[in-house]
Amino acid sequence: MIEDLSCSQQEILDAAAECFMQMGPDVASIDDIARLLGSTKGRVYHHFRSKGELLYAVRLRSVSLLMEKVRPIAMEDKPPVEKLRAMSIAHVLRILKFLSYHRVVSEDTRMFFRGSAKPQEMEMIEKVIEMRRAYENLYRTVLQEGIEAGVFARQSVSITLHSIIILMNGPCFWYSPRAEQSSKDLAEIAQSVSNLVLRAVLTDPALLQEV
Amino acid sequence: MIEDLSCSQQEILDAAAECFMQMGPDVASIDDIARLLGSTKGRVYHHFRSKGELLYAVRLRSVSLLMEKVRPIAMEDKPPVEKLRAMSIAHVLRILKFLSYHRVVSEDTRMFFRGSAKPQEMEMIEKVIEMRRAYENLYRTVLQEGIEAGVFARQSVSITLHSIIILMNGPCFWYSPRAEQSSKDLAEIAQSVSNLVLRAVLTDPALLQEV
Repeated sequence: MIEDLSCSQQEILDAAAECFMQMGPDVASIDDIARLLGSTKGRVYHHFRSKGELLYAVRLRSVSLLMEKVRPIAMEDKPPVEKLRAMSIAHVLRILKFLSYHRVVSEDTRMFFRGSAKPQEMEMIEKVIEMRRAYENLYRTVLQEGIEAGVFARQSVSITLHSIIILMNGPCFWYSPRAEQSSKDLAEIAQSVSNLVLRAVLTDPALLQEV
Repeated sequence: MIEDLSCSQQEILDAAAECFMQMGPDVASIDDIARLLGSTKGRVYHHFRSKGELLYAVRLRSVSLLMEKVRPIAMEDKPPVEKLRAMSIAHVLRILKFLSYHRVVSEDTRMFFRGSAKPQEMEMIEKVIEMRRAYENLYRTVLQEGIEAGVFARQSVSITLHSIIILMNGPCFWYSPRAEQSSKDLAEIAQSVSNLVLRAVLTDPALLQEV
């Protein structure tokens, strides 16, 4: 789906995502990114020609990071409840682990709707939105399967889809990483959010325990 | 809670919120706002000394708009399920009706966390955040009442609170107003989102029907 990134490219993107998140994509410069990397601008320019290209790569990677974990689960032959459970936990864990990527992206979708993006940017953002749509369709499918199987409530698929995506992206808005946070803590957050997602769609919350 | 606004002030704020949403608060100017109003800059300056003051008033009003509808419901002596139902419907309807205000505000909370706000702005944003916290506490209370009454599931109150607020603010992100949208359509959206909120917290979805 996305070209394989070298370790060096990933490292640069991690630093870029962090800078974009902290300073905003308009303010952050290649200098800032190089400084955070403890590296030279030359190293950054070796892989990415401009800040625009970096921002685009950050956006693409934000969806890829979700896709690569969630898609294989969506493709498994499992009952819808179990599948949505596993998909939502994987999604939240990715959000928590790569918070800066997802914060940057949730921000610039706004720019797109506002129409303040430049034509070239628009094209990139459109491609990212297309990928995100493909990602959301994984959830649309499992929702429809669950409704047909009678385990998910019959309610507007489109509002439900938007709502569970928002719920799963929630940590972007409210989660502040702490130094002493363990992977057990993160798993608990993912579990709690996933419970809310499942409750929101299940016809019978007793099904929650069976997972 | 907030000084009563005159009709003229409200009209100016409506235009300001619209401009801030469409162009972003950094780009939008008093000129743009006056143009949208079909009025002079003088009229705007008569009520608000600067763009910063306008932005602040838009932020304050976004919370007040929610508060004035939801607080009276929260104060009623009603069972938690019925109360959360009415509160969430009122919240979503306000979001849908005053979309531009809420879009502007959801955007600049980010600026606050990023620390890119100027000291004077920080003070204003802090006051808005404080008001928003008071607003969220209305939901915290009803959640706790429901858990104690055994009608809401025992799950982390803090994650649940964040999550239902995000759910109810969801239309900020995914709703695009259409010209032919009727108030019945809006009521249906509010009802659907409210159903998801209630399902997410109820121990037994049969309670959903009883409302």
